[in-house]
Amino acid sequence: MDRRDFLKKMSAAAAGAVVAGGLELNASERRRRGGSDKPGAGSGLELPEGSIILFTGDSITDGARERKYYRLYNHIRALGNGYVQLTATRLNYMFPDRDLKIYNTGINGDTIEKMMARLETDCIKLKPDFVSVLIGVNDFNVSFSRTGKGNPDKYEREYRQMLDRIKSALPDVRFIIGEPYAVKGAREITDAWYPEFETYPAIARKMAEEFGAAFIPYQSVYAEAAAGAPERYFSTDGVHPSIAGVRLMSNAWLSYVNPR
Amino acid sequence: MDRRDFLKKMSAAAAGAVVAGGLELNASERRRRGGSDKPGAGSGLELPEGSIILFTGDSITDGARERKYYRLYNHIRALGNGYVQLTATRLNYMFPDRDLKIYNTGINGDTIEKMMARLETDCIKLKPDFVSVLIGVNDFNVSFSRTGKGNPDKYEREYRQMLDRIKSALPDVRFIIGEPYAVKGAREITDAWYPEFETYPAIARKMAEEFGAAFIPYQSVYAEAAAGAPERYFSTDGVHPSIAGVRLMSNAWLSYVNPR
Repeated sequence: MDRRDFLKKMSAAAAGAVVAGGLELNASERRRRGGSDKPGAGSGLELPEGSIILFTGDSITDGARERKYYRLYNHIRALGNGYVQLTATRLNYMFPDRDLKIYNTGINGDTIEKMMARLETDCIKLKPDFVSVLIGVNDFNVSFSRTGKGNPDKYEREYRQMLDRIKSALPDVRFIIGEPYAVKGAREITDAWYPEFETYPAIARKMAEEFGAAFIPYQSVYAEAAAGAPERYFSTDGVHPSIAGVRLMSNAWLSYVNPR
Repeated sequence: MDRRDFLKKMSAAAAGAVVAGGLELNASERRRRGGSDKPGAGSGLELPEGSIILFTGDSITDGARERKYYRLYNHIRALGNGYVQLTATRLNYMFPDRDLKIYNTGINGDTIEKMMARLETDCIKLKPDFVSVLIGVNDFNVSFSRTGKGNPDKYEREYRQMLDRIKSALPDVRFIIGEPYAVKGAREITDAWYPEFETYPAIARKMAEEFGAAFIPYQSVYAEAAAGAPERYFSTDGVHPSIAGVRLMSNAWLSYVNPR
């Protein structure tokens, strides 16, 4: 299979994976736009004027944001230096007429359990219209480092509970769910992680289906990108993105969410 | 003049302003690519394998980079959260096969005088192949706040001296010069700045001509963008970019440099 065929196959697989739920994403349209800044005429996630968009999760989302600018939307120091900041800069640049308000409440090291403890202040009180979540690698790793295996049942139960709590407080909220990922070959990502780690991405995908969410398949996005680049080019430690990796993730977010 | 004509006119003006010096930039090609991630087939600035690219200047370049990651190239915490980080993520993403090494040594509040004092450690010792400079608004403001007027002669003399010093230490270095800009209407940018402030952008442009540098006309880039957006959308205080502004600047950099 050459690279072009591989890309096609990935694209088709990704299209199948995305739950419509009003998003009506179209794979070829997404690929055509490829994370472009130009608002497309095609289908995608409509962001009405004044939309409040919250990104939340663990260190990957946190992106070293400055805590003292706590809860300021669109603030350059509040968004970190990761895929959230890149995506926020692009959304603001793309839609100057929309008055979008973008927050980041990711915290390094977080699991769903930790996110739940701050759900009221760091999510519900912000009254987001869209909640983009990326969580799971610490959930696996906390369990794995204690017991030598994951605890996918806990992850699934808590993930559903968290989304239910948000949904019952904010009935019109729309979710965007990122696939937890790990890049094999890096120091911390040993063979002992597999196959059990793979249950976590599958659960995140299941949550996207249950809650009619857009789904960003970061695992396959990283795998596809790695094929044409030096080792660890997109992630230095297998979990945290490099500078090329944050761009990769932001492109994927825009590509799969396809905001319009 | 409608917006389309305005854009065309801006584009043509910008094309004329860019000094070739081997860059052979083409305006329509630049606009077509519009800061896209896809390496273009057209002309532009070739980045050979292993190129070392240094961004330096004042707070706009600094972008709140973390000083403790001092002099690590391509490090996500060393590049800040401004146009440099955005541009670095995109260059790394665009050219996974090039082994590009990107540094940021911008420091908030800097003037050319201050940059000169750290030129050896923060520029020459890094042996950059490309030096992208954006400096001047503090040079104006330091003089203006003391004397009520600028000191363009000092700016021009020191700018030329700085570029000469870099060039004599690194004969093959290529410069990329950003136009110092200020967005009228913000609190700090009063009418008293004009017309004298405008001599500063003109001097930066002259330096680009003298040193065969690519020139990024940020002043007109901001002016053009402002036409279609709410007030202060791209710069909150007239000098520092908003999150939409960093995207605007990164797009302009990639568009005018047109790396290939």
